[in-house]
Amino acid sequence: MTESMIGSSKRYPASRPLITQRHAQILSTGSGVPDEVVTNQQLIDELALMATDRAVQYSIGITERRRAPFHVESSVYLEKAARECLQRAGVAAESLDRIIYSRLFGDHFVPATAARLAERLGIDRCIPVTDISAACSGVMHAVELAISMINAGDEYVLVLGGDRTAMSQQVAVAKDTRTVLLNGDGFAGILLGRSPSPSFLARYFYTDSDLSEFAYIPFGTELLNGTLAFGPEMAAMKMPDGRRIHQSVLDSCKIISSRLLEITGLSMQDIDFVITSDQTYHVWKEQLAVLGVPEAKSVSCFHKYGNTVAAMVPLNLHEAYATHAITPGMKVMMMGHGAGASGGGFVFIA
Amino acid sequence: MTESMIGSSKRYPASRPLITQRHAQILSTGSGVPDEVVTNQQLIDELALMATDRAVQYSIGITERRRAPFHVESSVYLEKAARECLQRAGVAAESLDRIIYSRLFGDHFVPATAARLAERLGIDRCIPVTDISAACSGVMHAVELAISMINAGDEYVLVLGGDRTAMSQQVAVAKDTRTVLLNGDGFAGILLGRSPSPSFLARYFYTDSDLSEFAYIPFGTELLNGTLAFGPEMAAMKMPDGRRIHQSVLDSCKIISSRLLEITGLSMQDIDFVITSDQTYHVWKEQLAVLGVPEAKSVSCFHKYGNTVAAMVPLNLHEAYATHAITPGMKVMMMGHGAGASGGGFVFIA
Repeated sequence: MTESMIGSSKRYPASRPLITQRHAQILSTGSGVPDEVVTNQQLIDELALMATDRAVQYSIGITERRRAPFHVESSVYLEKAARECLQRAGVAAESLDRIIYSRLFGDHFVPATAARLAERLGIDRCIPVTDISAACSGVMHAVELAISMINAGDEYVLVLGGDRTAMSQQVAVAKDTRTVLLNGDGFAGILLGRSPSPSFLARYFYTDSDLSEFAYIPFGTELLNGTLAFGPEMAAMKMPDGRRIHQSVLDSCKIISSRLLEITGLSMQDIDFVITSDQTYHVWKEQLAVLGVPEAKSVSCFHKYGNTVAAMVPLNLHEAYATHAITPGMKVMMMGHGAGASGGGFVFIA
Repeated sequence: MTESMIGSSKRYPASRPLITQRHAQILSTGSGVPDEVVTNQQLIDELALMATDRAVQYSIGITERRRAPFHVESSVYLEKAARECLQRAGVAAESLDRIIYSRLFGDHFVPATAARLAERLGIDRCIPVTDISAACSGVMHAVELAISMINAGDEYVLVLGGDRTAMSQQVAVAKDTRTVLLNGDGFAGILLGRSPSPSFLARYFYTDSDLSEFAYIPFGTELLNGTLAFGPEMAAMKMPDGRRIHQSVLDSCKIISSRLLEITGLSMQDIDFVITSDQTYHVWKEQLAVLGVPEAKSVSCFHKYGNTVAAMVPLNLHEAYATHAITPGMKVMMMGHGAGASGGGFVFIA
């Protein structure tokens, strides 16, 4: 894997084994998507967009997305995802040792929205919780942290991702039809617990800071120095070079998969199922082509949920478990790609 | 330790040992405070505040704070702190395996500001980096994650905290003299690496979601539903019940210390030095009184830096190392308290 592939000056780190004595596994998944379904035509009508449903389906691959009412807090949907995780695994909320939420906006900026989720879950024990910020690959980072915290003593760690991304785009001035139609509101969770034998066979994570200016949401310094106008557009993602970002997802897909196979000694033919971030339907298809994996060995919820940032990967994983596309004993490759550029993933035995 | 002490309905979790095979230790610390020193009198004059330097020193305990120019990004100061950490430990930037930054605003909202720090450090390897959000106790959470990541395979993990907190308050309308004078801009880092024997003897972390509404910065849902007016006050901390927050810091100080002593089997007399978050000079003094620790066994930089949120704890630790108040072999209790309410800490051998 050479650097030139990704158009970056950086070296991608060598593979590093995951050293655990107390092994972790995925116990369950849960979805926290809002109830309201919004079709392309509804959005086109509401926002008076110059677009047709058919053109949108063809160009982006989305037919509908979910939308949360303006006044409902993100933690309401996190609670829904969390309760499904707990119910499916038969684990009580009170048994959780830690919550890690990969957020975008959250309920508040401070404190962690995970603290408000703990309150909604009625957890009586004051367990440690943290929000992390890592865009579309956030839940993968959170899973890596969860595995390490279980190794260090935790029993049950709940990780969640997703946010009100449709809202953030739609409150922004609808200058870019594609962007407005691309995102959806969505939340999902993954519950991790102990495993008698290693379930996670390998992990690989990286951040390529060469690409840090190619997809970003301002705020921060711009807010403080007054060069960012206060207004809804503050919440909108800037993507000055969408083509390079698109290509970097495909390149990082190659890098992550080759590193994971290298650590495990497996070949792509040994992998039974692939879960990845589907920023668009085409990005999902192209990743599978890069990996040489048939579409039947993966799943994308993009057509019905759109780009839900950190929720994409856990929503696809949830879909695969819920439809029994992933069954016990399968070898799964799971990865996510996000702004930063930041990405990573795992090979695990389901 | 009963719940009634903290005025909370919650149970504080029992002590849990830190299970590590690959042990971690603090290798070095670094400060990234801006150069410009702003005295009370300067701020009083600039903002036309109804206050005197003497009254401010008496009531809050601050004489001056640092201030970053509006246009300079947070990652500039993170780089300064990072380079001092690396230089003091004799570790090359290229050897870092991970960066975790406990931020407030950061350079951008997305991607992680830690990615921009990696770029500034000229790190050629695409190491994984993450921002976390956990207010004043953030660096303590980051250290807990770093210990666990070293246990799972990392060699060197750099954690950092702090942000442009003076700016965030001063761009806000100066309605509350105390708040405007309380904060300072500050950044600091802690470099962790492997240790042949256990250095961290215990950790204890909690989040008390009963207190999540008592200190917060809005944004999030309020931004999306339009109930938050766009403007500089978006960045300002809301503290509807400062007295309860103040009391909770003292109570959580008791809880954290008693749990840490319980795990280690040590008594407070065995602890050679105490590092804690000093939200004000008085909060620092009162914590030491609660612990029964003389002021000579702790340090507060509050008088010269003010409240620097996640940078307070690492700045105090840095001061203690730089002045040789902490020397090798000492048993140190280190903790932080923040919005959430979220807190925790360690006992470690320096």
